[in-house]
Amino acid sequence: MSHNSFGHLFRVTSWGESHGPALGCVVDGAPARLPLEEGDIQHWLDRRRPGQNRFTTQRNEPDRVKILSGVFEDPETGAQVTTGTPVQLLIENTDQRSKDYSDIKDKYRPGHADFTYMEKYGVRDYRGGGRQSARETATRVAAGGVARKVLNGIRIRAALVQIGPHPIDRDKWDWNETENNPFWCPDAQAAAQWEDYLDTVRKAGSSCGAIIEVVASHVPVGWGAPVYGKLDADLAGAMMSINAVKGVEIGDGFATAALSGESNSDEMHTEEGTIGFGSNHAGGILGGISSGQDIVVRFAVKPTSSILTPRKTIDRNGNETEIITKGRHDPCVGIRAVPVGEAMMACVLADHKLRHLGQYHGQYRDQGNGRN
Amino acid sequence: MSHNSFGHLFRVTSWGESHGPALGCVVDGAPARLPLEEGDIQHWLDRRRPGQNRFTTQRNEPDRVKILSGVFEDPETGAQVTTGTPVQLLIENTDQRSKDYSDIKDKYRPGHADFTYMEKYGVRDYRGGGRQSARETATRVAAGGVARKVLNGIRIRAALVQIGPHPIDRDKWDWNETENNPFWCPDAQAAAQWEDYLDTVRKAGSSCGAIIEVVASHVPVGWGAPVYGKLDADLAGAMMSINAVKGVEIGDGFATAALSGESNSDEMHTEEGTIGFGSNHAGGILGGISSGQDIVVRFAVKPTSSILTPRKTIDRNGNETEIITKGRHDPCVGIRAVPVGEAMMACVLADHKLRHLGQYHGQYRDQGNGRN
Amino acid sequence: MSHNSFGHLFRVTSWGESHGPALGCVVDGAPARLPLEEGDIQHWLDRRRPGQNRFTTQRNEPDRVKILSGVFEDPETGAQVTTGTPVQLLIENTDQRSKDYSDIKDKYRPGHADFTYMEKYGVRDYRGGGRQSARETATRVAAGGVARKVLNGIRIRAALVQIGPHPIDRDKWDWNETENNPFWCPDAQAAAQWEDYLDTVRKAGSSCGAIIEVVASHVPVGWGAPVYGKLDADLAGAMMSINAVKGVEIGDGFATAALSGESNSDEMHTEEGTIGFGSNHAGGILGGISSGQDIVVRFAVKPTSSILTPRKTIDRNGNETEIITKGRHDPCVGIRAVPVGEAMMACVLADHKLRHLGQYHGQYRDQGNGRN
Amino acid sequence: MSHNSFGHLFRVTSWGESHGPALGCVVDGAPARLPLEEGDIQHWLDRRRPGQNRFTTQRNEPDRVKILSGVFEDPETGAQVTTGTPVQLLIENTDQRSKDYSDIKDKYRPGHADFTYMEKYGVRDYRGGGRQSARETATRVAAGGVARKVLNGIRIRAALVQIGPHPIDRDKWDWNETENNPFWCPDAQAAAQWEDYLDTVRKAGSSCGAIIEVVASHVPVGWGAPVYGKLDADLAGAMMSINAVKGVEIGDGFATAALSGESNSDEMHTEEGTIGFGSNHAGGILGGISSGQDIVVRFAVKPTSSILTPRKTIDRNGNETEIITKGRHDPCVGIRAVPVGEAMMACVLADHKLRHLGQYHGQYRDQGNGRN
Repeated sequence: MSHNSFGHLFRVTSWGESHGPALGCVVDGAPARLPLEEGDIQHWLDRRRPGQNRFTTQRNEPDRVKILSGVFEDPETGAQVTTGTPVQLLIENTDQRSKDYSDIKDKYRPGHADFTYMEKYGVRDYRGGGRQSARETATRVAAGGVARKVLNGIRIRAALVQIGPHPIDRDKWDWNETENNPFWCPDAQAAAQWEDYLDTVRKAGSSCGAIIEVVASHVPVGWGAPVYGKLDADLAGAMMSINAVKGVEIGDGFATAALSGESNSDEMHTEEGTIGFGSNHAGGILGGISSGQDIVVRFAVKPTSSILTPRKTIDRNGNETEIITKGRHDPCVGIRAVPVGEAMMACVLADHKLRHLGQYHGQYRDQGNGRN
Repeated sequence: MSHNSFGHLFRVTSWGESHGPALGCVVDGAPARLPLEEGDIQHWLDRRRPGQNRFTTQRNEPDRVKILSGVFEDPETGAQVTTGTPVQLLIENTDQRSKDYSDIKDKYRPGHADFTYMEKYGVRDYRGGGRQSARETATRVAAGGVARKVLNGIRIRAALVQIGPHPIDRDKWDWNETENNPFWCPDAQAAAQWEDYLDTVRKAGSSCGAIIEVVASHVPVGWGAPVYGKLDADLAGAMMSINAVKGVEIGDGFATAALSGESNSDEMHTEEGTIGFGSNHAGGILGGISSGQDIVVRFAVKPTSSILTPRKTIDRNGNETEIITKGRHDPCVGIRAVPVGEAMMACVLADHKLRHLGQYHGQYRDQGNGRN
Repeated sequence: MSHNSFGHLFRVTSWGESHGPALGCVVDGAPARLPLEEGDIQHWLDRRRPGQNRFTTQRNEPDRVKILSGVFEDPETGAQVTTGTPVQLLIENTDQRSKDYSDIKDKYRPGHADFTYMEKYGVRDYRGGGRQSARETATRVAAGGVARKVLNGIRIRAALVQIGPHPIDRDKWDWNETENNPFWCPDAQAAAQWEDYLDTVRKAGSSCGAIIEVVASHVPVGWGAPVYGKLDADLAGAMMSINAVKGVEIGDGFATAALSGESNSDEMHTEEGTIGFGSNHAGGILGGISSGQDIVVRFAVKPTSSILTPRKTIDRNGNETEIITKGRHDPCVGIRAVPVGEAMMACVLADHKLRHLGQYHGQYRDQGNGRN
Repeated sequence: MSHNSFGHLFRVTSWGESHGPALGCVVDGAPARLPLEEGDIQHWLDRRRPGQNRFTTQRNEPDRVKILSGVFEDPETGAQVTTGTPVQLLIENTDQRSKDYSDIKDKYRPGHADFTYMEKYGVRDYRGGGRQSARETATRVAAGGVARKVLNGIRIRAALVQIGPHPIDRDKWDWNETENNPFWCPDAQAAAQWEDYLDTVRKAGSSCGAIIEVVASHVPVGWGAPVYGKLDADLAGAMMSINAVKGVEIGDGFATAALSGESNSDEMHTEEGTIGFGSNHAGGILGGISSGQDIVVRFAVKPTSSILTPRKTIDRNGNETEIITKGRHDPCVGIRAVPVGEAMMACVLADHKLRHLGQYHGQYRDQGNGRN
């Protein structure tokens, strides 16, 4: 709707620049009485935090979240819970070295939005990318922490499945491995190779892209809607809204183009009284509505645009020039996108859960109230 | 917002099932005094119409559009123009052979939304897919016809760039060729090969997927918005909302994951007083805002789920069974998705054009009125 | 959002002009499996229909509604029910005497939107008011018929409580009387007086205004939301969107300005185990949320602008002139606004019911599903 | 849409409780390069601030606003301007005496939303009303400060026109007087009488209601939209969303019900080349679209519910009890609603200005761009 909001019943409105006093988001629509403390949000922010290893930027961003509204003590349990009113999550900017960015004030960095922002707005906060900065994604991760509370019982995990030209071996997939390496890589052997590869990229002052896979398990059948309100359409929009993302796919995605109808068919059967599928090419969504299988989304992140190799560009006055983007930059921003992808999945699912509760025919029919 | 609407200022609301009396859409928000006659819409519908060759279904769907509202004679020119009020576009269903679909009343077709619709709604119009039917996309094409009027001066074209496992040779790209073969294929040689391939697929009662590329030229710099209102995020959601679409990418898309920052960089220069780019890996969008380059979107369509090979499935009561989907079906629904992709591009761009006019700083500042 | 839609989960999109081929609305978001036949809608349209007595226009508008989509046979009961997909309600225009309106083509009728439409759009369908025509309210009444299905158990009634300067005697209020006179007047004695009064107004070629009161009973506690999503804020917007409405109030409304805090206080007590109130000055809404008491809304309709007395005005070219609005017009459009007010109440409540089901803490907590 | 947001292109999202660490709002959609400093916002907040005289509460709420995002130095002028990104306005809560409110923890105050919040949410921040508190209106006034920047050239003023049963004499209206008394009363004589009246009310521990009139001058012709997007419908919703408001009217409002068509008719003429009206019964809006005349809105505020007279009520467990609401309360909250009404008018107009720019046929047609 508005440019900086998404979701319908569970709605996130984000604000803030990388070098202003703070940034944050308003999470509106979370049902009341969900336990929520700052630690619940901080847990997820800490996973996204840069500066944790030599493959992400060395900036010291503690990303300490404060809950400014929307929580209070539960009248029965005394625990801090949501109250049904908007939750404002605020993160102060504490490590802004504005001087690092002074030479990009007038030059447009290729691959960045410097040029398009100036054309549209005629002004931009050039310090650290301002509103374009990937720092905005911290607010998404924070919002995702609230969404996960709404999704109690649903598991959302993500992994890096390709870095530069190097994909993982999917037969070696082990979710536990994602916690053992700096890449959230589920294939231990690939992780080791990536370490060498990224060292080379980093030393060359270059950068590389990545592919992230996000999986939501235990989503019930029936979330989503036909036509324009499809669950996969909302997921595609949500993932594509993350900085530097250039592609999104559901289930087998682009690979399905090359499949035959027979190979792509997810046959159905019964399994101890419940419904089962022989495969999950569809990625857990049929006709825009969740099927009860794992929801599988992948997205591609382009290589970091800020590199040490000089690039031809123009300045604000239209003069040709060259630019080298110094400063502290991730050689692969895709790594930090892993928890961001999880958060976007959580926010979209939370919104569709609430929308589903309003319209699900069974829920609806059971709804009785004494005063009717 | 609602499940069957999209767009903010230029907003399309679709309704109708494949076997009801009619289907259509309301197009709300088009500025007044745009010339608009039924022929303007029919032109685009005719391109989508099935039954035109042996590779699309043999159903006879004339898809005759009627404009029921929102147009009137211009006070100056006398031509029929939009009035700024909602335009209702109605298409009657005239060739519905309900008997063809009677055996899918109780069985869930794998890959279709039969199962998920029943779980969510407890009822579905099983005739011809009802609301799930690709027939709904006719209303998108109709809406796109209005959007193109809003986008006067902008050219939107699409092509099929892969069918099954067979991509085109991009060096042979010739837009003129897309009008010479039944696939909207820009590579004459590939088109000839596809003809043989599709014949084999069709005779085997099988099906195949496809990849479509949509290109919008002459879009000015500055349309779109940062963060959640990104032009590419809206395009991704719009394309993913088309039936059977499993993936969307902008510019070089998934391929960027394997590129280095240097290779992916679209360098900038000046070109006879205007700004030029050395390449277009970004697909015409930077930071969610159009850059003035061609906007390039690709999407993947899965193979038609309705095939003649028996598939294991369950019925509405949970009993295991088999299903063969007879009837008149396209072996490759991707072919008919080409004009649908163009239409979705047009609708998203029209919406962003109107939103941009409301917020563009230059436009805004020039806005003077005597009474202020 | 869009100009011709309202509601969030239960959303109505209206289209059509008074003298085009048809008008109608799309009702999106109704839960599935609600019994719905054309007769259910027609019942309410027949109440609004003009030409029923000498106090409403003598145009013959049968207002025959067709349901074009969104219904199908229930798999269990076989009855026609909603399917959860958009319901298109279409009403053909059959009695359009365009010649009656030819002389208003170029003159602006005072009190009408002729002038403002032309300034904004530069074109208008001047026949019978086009999109400005009160005929559009037929689509609201039709949508209200669907909303009432969603609100099973809730009773929505309206009455005319003042016509011109003549209010009813509230002590004589009898809902049954509203069916016994052509004004939906709950006070038999006032109705008799109004008959004389309106005859005078009609014979003088003049017109008069009216006040309508809409009451919803058995609305459960808890619908609505704080701050901008207040139930009363949505009701105020909905009522003010009806043609010719100039004021809206909830409960005691403007009269509360003159009350003391003590007199305005609705004291609470227990009543056979449930909660009771000593009065209902608040009109059933506290802090934007329903209290379980009757929801009471009143709105004022200005006198019909089309009168036989010549009025000074200008034409499209800015020349001064005079106008007499002939044709078949209601001396008091407020009468026909009674069922429209009911319909708007129904639509707003249906929307808030669905939104409430998505966020009510109790409903939410009980929501369990086997797969989580 | 969401419960705590309003507006479409110019969109305000409010958050915060009266006794949390802070409250504020995100203003999204303001065009770039509007000069905006904290002082611009503070100016309006200072007008709303309580504790300024003995007729508003003696709480010391400095309401110091901070702009946390969305502004930067203009590249040409160096002045601080909007950047087109969200503006977060934050107000810290500094004078929260929680002990004052401890006895309302379990009792429901008649006329307050204590009961309805608990029924809906099962938990509430009972300190000072929490989210229900009129303190939330400070964020509206802050947002209105940004909206006024968007509305450069338009004048928005408000006045108190009735307090308790005492209306002003409209013949004595003098806008200058509104700055000379503590009531924003435009009638000096009435203001003097009100002072005595309010002293009596205050000493009695009672309260009274009020009526506020808001006037916007120099709004151009053409803002607004037909049917559901009417400018007056949005104004009605906006005013009714203010705490304690029970009625809204446009122009002559409820009084039009008693007028004849002739008396209510705003005749048109030409006036030195421009279009003029003989009267403004319509309040500057025809068919939902601004006519160029003053836009006139009035709203009624009920008497403060917190009074010193004991009232019968129930507690959270359903037991009957009595309550006296001590603490620092305004005898007439309507006084402080004056700047809030102005702010809501400003926000609605700013939103419609942006929407109009996107759709106005003239603006649209003139829109040329070199690349098309």
